Amino acid sequence: VSDRQRVNVADFEAAAAERIEAGALDYFAGGAGDERTLKRNVEAYAEWELVPRVLVDVSAVDASVELFGSELSMPLAQAPVAFQRLVHADGEEAMARAADAAGTAMCLSTIATATPASVAAAAPDATKWFQLYVFSDRAVTEALLAEAVESGYDAIFLTVDAPFAGRRERDLRADFEVDVDAPSVTAAIGSDRPVSIKEVFGLVDASLDWDDLASLAAGCELPIVIKGLMHPADAELAIQAGAAGVVVSNHGGRQLDGVPATIDALPMVAEAVDGRVPVLVDGGVRRGTDVLVALALGADAVLAGRPAVWGLAVNGEEGACEVLEILKAEIRLALALLGCRTPADVTRAHVQRARRS
Amino acid sequence: VSDRQRVNVADFEAAAAERIEAGALDYFAGGAGDERTLKRNVEAYAEWELVPRVLVDVSAVDASVELFGSELSMPLAQAPVAFQRLVHADGEEAMARAADAAGTAMCLSTIATATPASVAAAAPDATKWFQLYVFSDRAVTEALLAEAVESGYDAIFLTVDAPFAGRRERDLRADFEVDVDAPSVTAAIGSDRPVSIKEVFGLVDASLDWDDLASLAAGCELPIVIKGLMHPADAELAIQAGAAGVVVSNHGGRQLDGVPATIDALPMVAEAVDGRVPVLVDGGVRRGTDVLVALALGADAVLAGRPAVWGLAVNGEEGACEVLEILKAEIRLALALLGCRTPADVTRAHVQRARRS
Amino acid sequence: VSDRQRVNVADFEAAAAERIEAGALDYFAGGAGDERTLKRNVEAYAEWELVPRVLVDVSAVDASVELFGSELSMPLAQAPVAFQRLVHADGEEAMARAADAAGTAMCLSTIATATPASVAAAAPDATKWFQLYVFSDRAVTEALLAEAVESGYDAIFLTVDAPFAGRRERDLRADFEVDVDAPSVTAAIGSDRPVSIKEVFGLVDASLDWDDLASLAAGCELPIVIKGLMHPADAELAIQAGAAGVVVSNHGGRQLDGVPATIDALPMVAEAVDGRVPVLVDGGVRRGTDVLVALALGADAVLAGRPAVWGLAVNGEEGACEVLEILKAEIRLALALLGCRTPADVTRAHVQRARRS
Amino acid sequence: VSDRQRVNVADFEAAAAERIEAGALDYFAGGAGDERTLKRNVEAYAEWELVPRVLVDVSAVDASVELFGSELSMPLAQAPVAFQRLVHADGEEAMARAADAAGTAMCLSTIATATPASVAAAAPDATKWFQLYVFSDRAVTEALLAEAVESGYDAIFLTVDAPFAGRRERDLRADFEVDVDAPSVTAAIGSDRPVSIKEVFGLVDASLDWDDLASLAAGCELPIVIKGLMHPADAELAIQAGAAGVVVSNHGGRQLDGVPATIDALPMVAEAVDGRVPVLVDGGVRRGTDVLVALALGADAVLAGRPAVWGLAVNGEEGACEVLEILKAEIRLALALLGCRTPADVTRAHVQRARRS
Repeated sequence: VSDRQRVNVADFEAAAAERIEAGALDYFAGGAGDERTLKRNVEAYAEWELVPRVLVDVSAVDASVELFGSELSMPLAQAPVAFQRLVHADGEEAMARAADAAGTAMCLSTIATATPASVAAAAPDATKWFQLYVFSDRAVTEALLAEAVESGYDAIFLTVDAPFAGRRERDLRADFEVDVDAPSVTAAIGSDRPVSIKEVFGLVDASLDWDDLASLAAGCELPIVIKGLMHPADAELAIQAGAAGVVVSNHGGRQLDGVPATIDALPMVAEAVDGRVPVLVDGGVRRGTDVLVALALGADAVLAGRPAVWGLAVNGEEGACEVLEILKAEIRLALALLGCRTPADVTRAHVQRARRS
Repeated sequence: VSDRQRVNVADFEAAAAERIEAGALDYFAGGAGDERTLKRNVEAYAEWELVPRVLVDVSAVDASVELFGSELSMPLAQAPVAFQRLVHADGEEAMARAADAAGTAMCLSTIATATPASVAAAAPDATKWFQLYVFSDRAVTEALLAEAVESGYDAIFLTVDAPFAGRRERDLRADFEVDVDAPSVTAAIGSDRPVSIKEVFGLVDASLDWDDLASLAAGCELPIVIKGLMHPADAELAIQAGAAGVVVSNHGGRQLDGVPATIDALPMVAEAVDGRVPVLVDGGVRRGTDVLVALALGADAVLAGRPAVWGLAVNGEEGACEVLEILKAEIRLALALLGCRTPADVTRAHVQRARRS
Repeated sequence: VSDRQRVNVADFEAAAAERIEAGALDYFAGGAGDERTLKRNVEAYAEWELVPRVLVDVSAVDASVELFGSELSMPLAQAPVAFQRLVHADGEEAMARAADAAGTAMCLSTIATATPASVAAAAPDATKWFQLYVFSDRAVTEALLAEAVESGYDAIFLTVDAPFAGRRERDLRADFEVDVDAPSVTAAIGSDRPVSIKEVFGLVDASLDWDDLASLAAGCELPIVIKGLMHPADAELAIQAGAAGVVVSNHGGRQLDGVPATIDALPMVAEAVDGRVPVLVDGGVRRGTDVLVALALGADAVLAGRPAVWGLAVNGEEGACEVLEILKAEIRLALALLGCRTPADVTRAHVQRARRS
Repeated sequence: VSDRQRVNVADFEAAAAERIEAGALDYFAGGAGDERTLKRNVEAYAEWELVPRVLVDVSAVDASVELFGSELSMPLAQAPVAFQRLVHADGEEAMARAADAAGTAMCLSTIATATPASVAAAAPDATKWFQLYVFSDRAVTEALLAEAVESGYDAIFLTVDAPFAGRRERDLRADFEVDVDAPSVTAAIGSDRPVSIKEVFGLVDASLDWDDLASLAAGCELPIVIKGLMHPADAELAIQAGAAGVVVSNHGGRQLDGVPATIDALPMVAEAVDGRVPVLVDGGVRRGTDVLVALALGADAVLAGRPAVWGLAVNGEEGACEVLEILKAEIRLALALLGCRTPADVTRAHVQRARRS
């Protein structure tokens, strides 16, 4: 498959599968248990249909949105993905530059193979968010957070769906260990030896609760976005604890297998939030039309993780950017063909349940 | 497969696939994006069941209908399909003769490989409709329209679901370019060099709106039928703007992937129109029983595009006619076995939702 | 596969497929159009679940029923199937003896490869029913009917779903012609040359209506059962015209493709009939549990055609009888495990819709 | 597949399939009829989704439950499975030790390849339950029951869904006979010759009814649990007859094919019981997440039969224990990720119907 034949995310996924080492590929592509939720996240989008309107003047479409004080070129940003140097030597720095080139934000993982400062230096003008795990060793967490604030990150995404590692059986079978330099992990375990994913999650504080969040939010100058909730009541609790936004997420199907697809959980969360803070959703986004479905069901924007990681694997910064540009082009075309000039024009009336997927 | 073994549309589709050049086959057979809507258009028919009545005297069945002032031998006409000379040297002229021989109408595409006048000359007594794209260069559009009127066409079908080209990835992968003589395209770009489908659609005016339609309808002596709407509110707007009919269509799944099957959109459109103008539907019709489902759900007739194109590819005019005759025979038999003597006898009570497809 | 390994109807179907000549196999196994209804008839049974009750004394189960004045050993009789000598030289006579040996009734087809008298002579004590097509040449019909009455048949099953032959594409492709001796066909066309199925149906009177039925019922000393209705309103009309029973049937999926499965149509018909006459159902019965589903949904008994024909093909009378005995054993076991002692104990509460098939 | 690659029940199932003799494998793995219910039992779990809550302190999860006076380490016990020595020479004694080591109970089958006393001696401190078939020869039954009481069993599970053997066609085809020493069978037939499964069930009293149960319960010092009901009305009758608990069961899909999945039947039974006695469910449990679905739908615990039998086949006591430990780990992790600290925290609100499986 030559480069010019890669016309969509699936093409990049296939090309990346040929380039990434087997154990790492399983890590990035896999999910928990029987991978039902991993699959459902994707398939559930096909159970919604877009209902177009016609004879609207769509000669000028504008896909941009504003989020947490920054303007993005489209309602899609790069989700946090750990250990990106496992797919390409240029790692998270390249991803940050790619997102910036595509006009959107990148969210850096706590367990990245680059420090927040290094990523910020690589893409100084970019919109940057930092994903936070709260480790049992709070000193490590606080140091990371301080570095993110100092480096000019624009928001903190606190992951709340991983008090323990999900049962990712591909990794268990392969006995997969990460042997690249993940600074926060190295700091937390006081060593740079290879570690298993399970051991990494063993560092996370399983006792974290809503009171801890409230303290964290009160002490942080950046907006705190809660990532990893699926229930409308948890969205309400998040807002009450001071969250600046929520991400409907099941961790890409990597934590508890058998939970709903995020797009199925979105409508009730969006209804509960009722516009008080931005609502994002991640998991399963592969097409611009998926993004429009999410907007119609109440999302302000989506996060997509794996797609640009496949692009990074295929061709570094350029590949990641190409994937994001494809998604942007798909979003813009879908807006036009749906009869909408902007993301804000997309309403619940623009989608309906499909009879079948 | 010998000729006498071709007993249905699927047989002609298979035979045509062996005769049409790969790039062109992808162009005619393919759809947008993941081709979900392309598939759904066909499969959705199987989600309706026909409920027959018995001991009705069906010794004399009459399948004919009247539409836009013409009588057709059956409630099915040939949908507009571009560039027909790509499948057979006799092109649109042969298709017009085939439709005429089968007693039905043919709708000629704006981006045909024959002029309206040439097609009219080939089938002077046929019922002929002209499908219109409004180009940004209005002079080209007006010239085409004038030629159609002068050549005796009976109605204009204005396509409204294509302000931009759908993302047809088969064509993107193959970098498919049309290098046959498409007179309207040649006129619009002022050259007869090969062009990509995307470039062709780049000629279309993306700013067209309901006011433009009203002006067009007021200035045209022929009935204007709006083709490509899916929403009942758009059907209402079409009637208010002077439309003489509507076609529920998603452009054969070639524009926005993920929109509903047309047969699923038909009932609400038909209810909104409520008999004020004829309602047609296209996309996915492969069987006479499909046509009866459409009638039961409120259509006055259907358009079918690909089936007779496969016939044209297999055996020119004769092949196209054979496909139309098979469909007519299937329609007539299905009427009889449903306990109906005419299309008008088919009511909503003759169908029910299938439990599963 | 040795004989003792054939433990169910599917085993006999597979064995028969190896023994019957290709064209004839397609004739018996096939259906109309895309064979959607053929498949649905079978699959729809799997969409119902049996809800068992426990701790009922089922040490003595009795599966017998009374129907049209005769006692059958089980609520299942042999459906009419044409041209049985095409699968085994012993033809309909062997089938009648097999049904008799299994304690149930056989319904002889009008277009059988044996006369009513010959079949009656072969199984003089059996319960025998005669299936009737009304030919345009009424003299042929009347002669057949008179022969059935004189030969001691117990009921007439009038087929009403075949004013024309369904579009059975397997037969069209193979150009299948029947060249065995079918006495009624020979009489109707005045010759014993091979005929196509389509030609046979061309003999049927497509103008037959409810008034004709009333006349027929008034003039016939035997009970007339209407076979081939799917709509509750037609069941009502049948009773008003003097029918002694109805068979919910779509001709085994061989007439109009796309009609509902018979088991899906049964409940509303049974509700309309409300016990005034027996209600039978055919199409798709492959298991004793299917029969219990039919009883629970309002049937007094079922007809099964293909299963014993496969038995006939495999081993003549003995094979047909073996199939009927397997079905009887399955019915008896299913009654016991459902907590029912007799067919009359099976109620609507013993079934529920399956979530999925 | 090396041992350390077996990370879930499915891995043990695959490994066991390579170790168990074909006839015996069919016996343990198979079901009745078309094995629809066998499959449904498993698949139906995937039609429920788990709805997690977040930011709950789950640093200390406790999965233990109390049942019939004993404490189990998790809400899962070993279901009765006949003839375990067919998969491993250590048989039921090894299974009892494995269950004890995993901290849970084992239910011994009446038709075991070990006596109640022998199993009790092998695992004296374990929680042990005894599954009872009532034979027509009541003396055999009474002797078995007395032995169980004397040996210190904690409860009796009376199977009520098998007045006759289900039609297990894999066994019919293979003419499968059990030639290992099954003491109760030997006693009942007065011989130790090989017997077919059908013959074993021929010993069961098909006339057993609710009055027999009441007498049995009144005369037995141990709690009597009714195993094999699917209907809420039968649960009510069981309680009225003195049952100490009920098991929603369809005998692992081995009796009447076409009955609902047990997880589909559970909610109505649990609602009818309304906490008066413990409700258990068996059939189809393969994952810790399945167990949580059952808890959410009203079960106090589940029985799982085949999983640990596969473990027994692979590696005797150790293998069986490994399977039970995997299930325990999955249960504990699923509790934590669902936001629950104990089984009692799991409520109906933690599950919802999946859109599709």
